[in-house]
Amino acid sequence: MLKQEEKLNQSLAQQVAKQLEELIMTKEYQVGDQLPNEFDLASKLDVGRGTIREAIKLLAARNVVVIKRGLGTFVSDNPGLTEDPLGLTFITDKKKLSHDLMEVRLMVEPNISALAAQYATNDEIIEMEKLCLEIEYLIQNNKNHEEKDIEFHTLIAKASKNLVVPSLIPIIQSAISLFIDLTHRSLKEETIETHRKIIDAIKSGNSEAAKEAMYQHLQYNKKELSI
Amino acid sequence: MLKQEEKLNQSLAQQVAKQLEELIMTKEYQVGDQLPNEFDLASKLDVGRGTIREAIKLLAARNVVVIKRGLGTFVSDNPGLTEDPLGLTFITDKKKLSHDLMEVRLMVEPNISALAAQYATNDEIIEMEKLCLEIEYLIQNNKNHEEKDIEFHTLIAKASKNLVVPSLIPIIQSAISLFIDLTHRSLKEETIETHRKIIDAIKSGNSEAAKEAMYQHLQYNKKELSI
Repeated sequence: MLKQEEKLNQSLAQQVAKQLEELIMTKEYQVGDQLPNEFDLASKLDVGRGTIREAIKLLAARNVVVIKRGLGTFVSDNPGLTEDPLGLTFITDKKKLSHDLMEVRLMVEPNISALAAQYATNDEIIEMEKLCLEIEYLIQNNKNHEEKDIEFHTLIAKASKNLVVPSLIPIIQSAISLFIDLTHRSLKEETIETHRKIIDAIKSGNSEAAKEAMYQHLQYNKKELSI
Repeated sequence: MLKQEEKLNQSLAQQVAKQLEELIMTKEYQVGDQLPNEFDLASKLDVGRGTIREAIKLLAARNVVVIKRGLGTFVSDNPGLTEDPLGLTFITDKKKLSHDLMEVRLMVEPNISALAAQYATNDEIIEMEKLCLEIEYLIQNNKNHEEKDIEFHTLIAKASKNLVVPSLIPIIQSAISLFIDLTHRSLKEETIETHRKIIDAIKSGNSEAAKEAMYQHLQYNKKELSI
């Protein structure tokens, strides 16, 4: 009997999670919005508070909402995009994985860079230059520039105005950084130089040059990672 | 007090979920394996059954495990790969999204096809030809060939031996099929013809031809979808 109840309850929580998801999709609750509290949601959706709580947990596990303790539940900044959406952590051959991720980056990022040369706004270019300087400073002072590097590549992806690639870039990059020992890096000068080349090409709206510069940059990276 | 308990309990469930994830990563439990029952897991990990149940639900929400009612809990076939891992359903401008997904496919799939020409096994080529015939049959009989089409492209992605792309292709494809009205399709002959061309190139190990054939196929698709 208890099992039966649990079963009904779980499918109910899933249904309620689906309803909440639809409310987010139809923009009733938008990115960053706080959801109503349990009481209000329970009465709005005509279910018990326990079911609401269960549904919220399911949504949080997929990063549709974020539970901030003591503050409430909020719609995530990137609803539905989880930390490792492709489940790459479950691939055990890390060396092959690193190689294959770089292979995918080489397919995608030069083209992204070409699009950025067409569609980047002035503000985005200013932001790129700022990031580029920050990365140079970090490299010259022997500090870790990985996080800023991911920001740099994500910014180029955003500047392409393609809605899909900004989700792909951080996955690919952070997945690489997860698995590779980056302490043996040596081609720092090349990183600085190729970053500059990418920005210059984007700035001058030269798609072909932007594509080529990103390709070269990734090829250097590939060597650097000794894949 | 209850709140405090709940808090402790949730974070405990998350910790236990993490532990189970690690057991899956280290292959103690492999793809398709059934997990031990709640009692055994609770005693193995030294926590209560409620915590185990909670942890399992969190893992199920991210498709690390699959709960089969009445049968037990199993490690998912694609652990960590959820149905819409990039959260694309939350992007509301479906027309732009369809265009951008096609743009990404055009970046990725011709290169994948070139790799498949290098690395496809005989068994994979036989499987491709089988799928190709099935799709032709469905097209000629005015039946929906979308699912088989996704299988076809995923098979090519697998044949590339790149570990990452087989996760990307179904996302990109099924996302397209979610949003686009495919009823206005007309270029069926071209689909049959370009599929054939792709297989022939892969079969003869001609990377350049495989790349070109896939590019053409996607261009036809792009027109077909009138993006």
